[in-house]
Amino acid sequence: AMDGAPPPSSPAGLSAYVAVSQLLGLTLLATTGAWLGRYRGGVAWHSPLQFNAHPLCMVLGMVFLQGDALLVYRVFRHEAKRSTKALHALLHGLALVIALVGIIAVFESHRAKGIPDMYSLHSWCGMATFVLYLLQWFLGCGFFLFPGASFSLREWYKPQHIFFGIVLFILSITSCLLGITEMLLFKISDSYSHFVPEGILANTLGVLLVAFGLVVGYMLTREEWKRPPLSEELALSMDFKTLTGEESPGG
Amino acid sequence: AMDGAPPPSSPAGLSAYVAVSQLLGLTLLATTGAWLGRYRGGVAWHSPLQFNAHPLCMVLGMVFLQGDALLVYRVFRHEAKRSTKALHALLHGLALVIALVGIIAVFESHRAKGIPDMYSLHSWCGMATFVLYLLQWFLGCGFFLFPGASFSLREWYKPQHIFFGIVLFILSITSCLLGITEMLLFKISDSYSHFVPEGILANTLGVLLVAFGLVVGYMLTREEWKRPPLSEELALSMDFKTLTGEESPGG
Repeated sequence: AMDGAPPPSSPAGLSAYVAVSQLLGLTLLATTGAWLGRYRGGVAWHSPLQFNAHPLCMVLGMVFLQGDALLVYRVFRHEAKRSTKALHALLHGLALVIALVGIIAVFESHRAKGIPDMYSLHSWCGMATFVLYLLQWFLGCGFFLFPGASFSLREWYKPQHIFFGIVLFILSITSCLLGITEMLLFKISDSYSHFVPEGILANTLGVLLVAFGLVVGYMLTREEWKRPPLSEELALSMDFKTLTGEESPGG
Repeated sequence: AMDGAPPPSSPAGLSAYVAVSQLLGLTLLATTGAWLGRYRGGVAWHSPLQFNAHPLCMVLGMVFLQGDALLVYRVFRHEAKRSTKALHALLHGLALVIALVGIIAVFESHRAKGIPDMYSLHSWCGMATFVLYLLQWFLGCGFFLFPGASFSLREWYKPQHIFFGIVLFILSITSCLLGITEMLLFKISDSYSHFVPEGILANTLGVLLVAFGLVVGYMLTREEWKRPPLSEELALSMDFKTLTGEESPGG
């Protein structure tokens, strides 16, 4: 704020939730790394270990980064809307690139081992989620980031964008849980039912993924934590309304 | 309405969504039945087929009935709040009883076959969902159905009840998808990757479960479709506010 007023504070509790969400996100990555490193031989690209890049990329891109991209309007609630939007698009874009690397890893590894593609429920859910996520990203950029879409068009699309954004985040986590179950039944089908450490660790990763989704989902849906319009945006919004007779997209 | 006014109409589109949701719910049951009947020998209690009661009960109780219980405030939007509440609790109660039968089926079938319990991610997610769903049901009855909870307590609990209600519905569907994946990898692990009809059918059941969740979730979160307070409730609410200085739970 350039008017000398004290910097606006965040709502009580929000900072604690932000901290917990980021701690959970890092724990997700550490747990995935521990599973792959300790029990699955580690991760490498041009090698029989290429498959292992798949779970690592999907947890990092489709869960951690996608979740953080959803949170930027809560975390940077007092920044200008334009920069927050750009960060939102950038994080989703990064998530998409990393997820694409993860998808290439599984297709190349299947080809090297002669395993068919796209037959399992995990692959159906995961691929549908990725394709729709890519589509949502293009639509989001087209409607909100580049100029051209009218204010009333933006106002109409915004609730759809938010609803499907949360749906895609949930579907991403669901696809991860399906992938964990598949991988355990492929790799340790004989010992899984004897509560071996690898099974417990991978199950725990599943529980942590649900916990991350729960914390992010709670932060997104809590009414008082939604981003309030800045005073400049409100003024601008009223100017637009007066000038054009149309609602501005900042309202 | 007893005052001779025309009966209030539902918002445009809602009836179509109600119809689609119920058609999807019945298709879920038919698809589950087709899978179990055509490929898994059917369902019977005191027999080696007892396990098959598990998927059928869980889809019926934890998905179809739970989903319909969530929808009653949208579908019966012009009925008295007290009767709608009672129906909401009744449908959830029925869902719980049917889910309990499904859980008994899997435990008894495991015991008969000497299979350990509760080692898989599916069992962890599913059991956690069932226990928390039972808890949520008791809390809901305690806060909203039986007299005693103060209005401010109800107002505080209501958003939590709604948030966790939707979370438990999502977790129920996720647990079903995990169960489908497990069952396919137990029963047809050799042929699943060759796109056999049973695999395609079970994957399709998974996709239909997601579609049902999507339609119900959209109906629940659409702002204009929320139940409006009846005029009597509004008047009552204002009387309470005047008399007690406290917000009424109907607001």
